[in-house]
Amino acid sequence: MAGQEKQFTLAGLAETFGLVLQGDGSVVVHGVGTLAGAGPGQLSFLANPRYRRELAATRAGAVVLSADDAGDSPVPCLVAKSPYVAFAKISALFEPAPAPAPGIHASAVVADDALVDPGAQIGPFVSIGARSRIGAGAVIGPGCVIGDDCEVGPGSVLVARVTLVTRVRLGARVRVHPGAVLGADGFGLAMDAGRWIKVPQVGGVVVGDDCEIGANTCIDRGAIEDTVLEEDVRLDNQIQIGHNVRIGAHTAVAGCVAVAGSARIGRYCLIGGAAGITGHLEICDKVTITAMSLVTQSITEPGEYSSGMAVQDSRSWRRNAARFRQLDQLARRMGALTKD
Amino acid sequence: MAGQEKQFTLAGLAETFGLVLQGDGSVVVHGVGTLAGAGPGQLSFLANPRYRRELAATRAGAVVLSADDAGDSPVPCLVAKSPYVAFAKISALFEPAPAPAPGIHASAVVADDALVDPGAQIGPFVSIGARSRIGAGAVIGPGCVIGDDCEVGPGSVLVARVTLVTRVRLGARVRVHPGAVLGADGFGLAMDAGRWIKVPQVGGVVVGDDCEIGANTCIDRGAIEDTVLEEDVRLDNQIQIGHNVRIGAHTAVAGCVAVAGSARIGRYCLIGGAAGITGHLEICDKVTITAMSLVTQSITEPGEYSSGMAVQDSRSWRRNAARFRQLDQLARRMGALTKD
Amino acid sequence: MAGQEKQFTLAGLAETFGLVLQGDGSVVVHGVGTLAGAGPGQLSFLANPRYRRELAATRAGAVVLSADDAGDSPVPCLVAKSPYVAFAKISALFEPAPAPAPGIHASAVVADDALVDPGAQIGPFVSIGARSRIGAGAVIGPGCVIGDDCEVGPGSVLVARVTLVTRVRLGARVRVHPGAVLGADGFGLAMDAGRWIKVPQVGGVVVGDDCEIGANTCIDRGAIEDTVLEEDVRLDNQIQIGHNVRIGAHTAVAGCVAVAGSARIGRYCLIGGAAGITGHLEICDKVTITAMSLVTQSITEPGEYSSGMAVQDSRSWRRNAARFRQLDQLARRMGALTKD
Repeated sequence: MAGQEKQFTLAGLAETFGLVLQGDGSVVVHGVGTLAGAGPGQLSFLANPRYRRELAATRAGAVVLSADDAGDSPVPCLVAKSPYVAFAKISALFEPAPAPAPGIHASAVVADDALVDPGAQIGPFVSIGARSRIGAGAVIGPGCVIGDDCEVGPGSVLVARVTLVTRVRLGARVRVHPGAVLGADGFGLAMDAGRWIKVPQVGGVVVGDDCEIGANTCIDRGAIEDTVLEEDVRLDNQIQIGHNVRIGAHTAVAGCVAVAGSARIGRYCLIGGAAGITGHLEICDKVTITAMSLVTQSITEPGEYSSGMAVQDSRSWRRNAARFRQLDQLARRMGALTKD
Repeated sequence: MAGQEKQFTLAGLAETFGLVLQGDGSVVVHGVGTLAGAGPGQLSFLANPRYRRELAATRAGAVVLSADDAGDSPVPCLVAKSPYVAFAKISALFEPAPAPAPGIHASAVVADDALVDPGAQIGPFVSIGARSRIGAGAVIGPGCVIGDDCEVGPGSVLVARVTLVTRVRLGARVRVHPGAVLGADGFGLAMDAGRWIKVPQVGGVVVGDDCEIGANTCIDRGAIEDTVLEEDVRLDNQIQIGHNVRIGAHTAVAGCVAVAGSARIGRYCLIGGAAGITGHLEICDKVTITAMSLVTQSITEPGEYSSGMAVQDSRSWRRNAARFRQLDQLARRMGALTKD
Repeated sequence: MAGQEKQFTLAGLAETFGLVLQGDGSVVVHGVGTLAGAGPGQLSFLANPRYRRELAATRAGAVVLSADDAGDSPVPCLVAKSPYVAFAKISALFEPAPAPAPGIHASAVVADDALVDPGAQIGPFVSIGARSRIGAGAVIGPGCVIGDDCEVGPGSVLVARVTLVTRVRLGARVRVHPGAVLGADGFGLAMDAGRWIKVPQVGGVVVGDDCEIGANTCIDRGAIEDTVLEEDVRLDNQIQIGHNVRIGAHTAVAGCVAVAGSARIGRYCLIGGAAGITGHLEICDKVTITAMSLVTQSITEPGEYSSGMAVQDSRSWRRNAARFRQLDQLARRMGALTKD
């Protein structure tokens, strides 16, 4: 790996992040690793109980863990209320976050009336449309296409090959991964005399500060008003967000989720992978939807909701599924029996 | 927003689109808005009954609605048989459909034997392969890749970063959104002595006139013959269309649908979001599949079909799902009871 | 179609591929076709029993088929143990696999310390980052973005618009289709005082020899260690592979599958379209998962597993689904009845 190596003592990390040191504070770490894979100079962590059995045999130089697990650590450790959070913060010290290299690559094509901050970095093969603005410290990676009337806030990063079609406004420190498409036309159609006619999509997309948008995720522009992500929304890869959806602050959405038009999702929600949410409904704050579940009606109570069915061996599954197809009949016969 | 503003009187719109005017025909509108969001100079519409309650309080300059709702409008209105269609048509007057700016961007790389109509617009960072043809009035946006032996019909638009891999033929007025990939190899594999061998994919993709292909949607090229979309097929985002699929005219497919190889879907079908359709089957005309449903066998009767299960609170769900896993047993016991 | 035409006699093909010739060995074929579509100069095949009824009427010049079907062939044929494999190999003779045209396109942007083999082909609008290496005979198609510290093995092909974000290492003869994104950050988040903080993703992606990655598929880089595809893994389009997933050799995954972080999938598995696999679990070798099924726990026995429910007409479905929501209750009442 490239870059000069950084290193820290456990004592120093404990002080910086307000953690409790257990063991030799002079131990030096210069990178991170998993419990099973880390070597002597590396810091590891234990947050997920699944990996607890790996603690005893770890060869890591030190481990970040909770008070409950600290007694079992064979090596020096940093005790944290939330080991995952502490590890995330420490880990960020080692990962070289490359500073933007301000300037516009010679190959980039920038509209005359676009405004690029002198502190922004515009990579090769980028095109920027009319009246668009790129903020200070923003990085527009190779192959990005930014259409007309867009805005990229300060410190935001479009990693590579991101498309902002038109009227897309990103706040500060937004991170968008490759292949994401923001601001494509929503799916608005009306059937007229046996043929579809396209309903013009004239709204935009507004993405709040500190949002993250995964690779190949799509967020359509609104039909009339905007599609909105409030601040600190986190979208994984391959997600589809329809026109005029609104997602509340601090909500996280796992990969391959489909959200249909005009759905409103609250704050602090967690949407599991490949879940589906139909249009024109509302999900309140603090709702968790588990993987591959389908939401077809508004949810008004916080809590966890599911409809993803787990696999069985196919023979059993087919037998049960066949019965499901007559479940109503079965229940009626059951009802008749009970009554008699 | 950019562009010069257009404006129309209600009376003028009524005449142009054959609508019934109710109220002051001299009212001028210069844009569109939602019932809740529109101001005095804006035209709104009421098509979805969910929004009926917003009519009374609207501040819109005028509203397009049905005869049934016209009595409740607090503002002048245009009465239409299909308010959504009428609104779509009127709305198109306001959305500036940018005319192509004919010419080939200096950065584009065009094969010597490719044929680009002088009336076509080729954007920056576009590459066009051997023997491909771009029709009059077509727009190839920034970053598109067009391989060999492709054809883009007159008036078609590839918004940006679209890939036509090879042997992809688009009709007239086709619109393809960013990230879409047409003509990638179908998933053809044969297991030979413990290793996969690739089955060559030598067919193409044929897309009829007036189709629309959403962002990051994929349509694979056929294995031998072509994958075909008939005219006026509308695909939303993130859809996967396998090799040798055929989709009938005027069918609309919502986001994240997966259609496996050699499936044939009829005309005027509606496929709901994230539905799955397995391969080598046939769906007749005028079939509706609801969201997250799975089609594993041919459908020969028009109508609506479902298998997407909606969420319950997770505790209830888990209990019910556990019973489902023994449903066949339950039904057998039930049968035994009934017989006795 | 372009290119000079190749042609072969049946006798020659029989000898080359060790097939049994039935009928006139001097028959010449110059291309391939389906049973229904092939003409006299074309070779067809019968592998899927669904198409057996098309054999009698075929106008193909010859057919590749199994011994069981050979008696029914109206035309000369090549008898194979696995007709699909034999056809795949013969078909590859006709499909012109374009030889790489070594060299770096004038528009490409290559980092000073990147190493491009003189036998590699780098297309237009490609960018290659620091310390990355491109092997002999590799083809990097138009619009690809290769970040820092990546490696593309000899003979590998990135068709077009592929992104290797960083620390992505592809083996030999890997084929990646347009829009695929390898090495984007995994979805690692920790909630800290009401806000998400990003967990740095510092691992890479390792893809073994002879893998194929479909269009718009994403493979995230590992959080700490690498995300790994062993050799000969075949991924279709629109698949999402989370961080630190490991997929065993010779496993094939159909389109739109979602695999969550740290899942381990064995060798020789077949994962059906739009299936979901949750994180931190293990699937053993030789497991088949059918379409739209959800795996939430480890699978330790080879075999076929399902949970994808097939459609019914919506009216029946709704009735049955309503009963499902009270299935636990129904089963309890059933239990009570049985006891009495």
